[in-house]
Amino acid sequence: MTHASFDLTLIGIGTGNPDHLTEQGARAIRQADLILIPRKGADKADLADLREQIIARVCDRPARIAYFDIPKRRADDGYLRGVEDWHDAIAARWHETIAAADPAPARVALLIWGDPSLYDSSPRIAARLDPRPRVRVVPGITALQALTAAHAIPVNDIGAPFAVTTGRRLREEGWPAGIDTIAVMLDGDCSFRAIDPEGVEIWWGAFLGMEEEILLHGPLQDMAERIVETRARARARHGWIMDIYLMRRRRRG
Amino acid sequence: MTHASFDLTLIGIGTGNPDHLTEQGARAIRQADLILIPRKGADKADLADLREQIIARVCDRPARIAYFDIPKRRADDGYLRGVEDWHDAIAARWHETIAAADPAPARVALLIWGDPSLYDSSPRIAARLDPRPRVRVVPGITALQALTAAHAIPVNDIGAPFAVTTGRRLREEGWPAGIDTIAVMLDGDCSFRAIDPEGVEIWWGAFLGMEEEILLHGPLQDMAERIVETRARARARHGWIMDIYLMRRRRRG
Repeated sequence: MTHASFDLTLIGIGTGNPDHLTEQGARAIRQADLILIPRKGADKADLADLREQIIARVCDRPARIAYFDIPKRRADDGYLRGVEDWHDAIAARWHETIAAADPAPARVALLIWGDPSLYDSSPRIAARLDPRPRVRVVPGITALQALTAAHAIPVNDIGAPFAVTTGRRLREEGWPAGIDTIAVMLDGDCSFRAIDPEGVEIWWGAFLGMEEEILLHGPLQDMAERIVETRARARARHGWIMDIYLMRRRRRG
Repeated sequence: MTHASFDLTLIGIGTGNPDHLTEQGARAIRQADLILIPRKGADKADLADLREQIIARVCDRPARIAYFDIPKRRADDGYLRGVEDWHDAIAARWHETIAAADPAPARVALLIWGDPSLYDSSPRIAARLDPRPRVRVVPGITALQALTAAHAIPVNDIGAPFAVTTGRRLREEGWPAGIDTIAVMLDGDCSFRAIDPEGVEIWWGAFLGMEEEILLHGPLQDMAERIVETRARARARHGWIMDIYLMRRRRRG
């Protein structure tokens, strides 16, 4: 069974602090007649209940929730190909879950960590659905914003550009040319160790917006080992970690 | 009179849609015992009342508001020097306005368009205050997020970096090397005309999140003139415009 048409709203919910939810996000949750949630275990342990908490807080009556399993990602096809297949598989799960809902929902919603547009694939997965729903995106607070807010710093120098990149890209391609500020996401490998620390300042944060939030800041030369150690300890303690950092390079000469 | 110590909270309020406010922002507004607001006329006409509307909506009792004039910016000292002097002058106004408040406020707040960390100088201005308050930043939805949400697109390609830059930098330095996606802010000059449009797609938005929102999307080659004209007409009609765009370059070969 497929539904002729429905709206799919991707709702950014911020980085783990339920207070990151916007009024627009709260309204979209209340208006949904089906909310898809990945089954527990597919998600980080401490975060598993947060979506339910947020929903319960903004809804007056119990929301209609359908759980789905996140398929395993195959690593044997190369990075990009693996990601494409994985998105196909997730789209299939969304499709099945929505098709199984009776009565057919007119407004389906998903709650997305951070913002659906930033290093998240929900818009791409939604575009794979057939029949294709009308997709709406509600922006949410990103990890980068939670980082700069926690350190009370601007992301950019005055009138200057910045780049957002991944740990993998930083290791493979080095510091982007002509840009003195970079934010690094999706870095499980402390890739800041791969660059020349001379003149570089780093602002690091983990579990941003949550009670467990950890912040470190200083010259990269002095902080690199401390961040590596702090990150390893925190990860061992929690069983998982989400972190991000911003680095600024002094112009030489 | 100066106050020995106070907290200063810079609250990101999003891009003009009052529903962009987060619960964290609403709480910070309610907890403030003095809210500084730039006097009308210093701000865009359509936006002048929005801060008051947001405050009235989240507060049960009337908030204590103090208005200040935004000083004029001198353009005769070069760009960076002019900005530095202007920030000094704004900090002096904040200081006077807070010092004049009786009783002395313990928690002062400012409502900032977008996010206080992204092309906004409120953290830099706050750092100029003497005595220096404890500065707290509440992140808000940025114009970039409002743009990608409105177009329902991801900002980045899968695992790929992106850069955020200004119209001035794009004109002076061209497309950043090694990066295929760029977002351009603070561009009063349609600087996308300064780059080679071959293989470039553009997503443009103005008045994002507001009722007047305008979106355009397509190959830069086809869209450049249409955006220039649409922007000029909208600006003439409203008396002002706020816009932003994202461009993605197809990899050649």
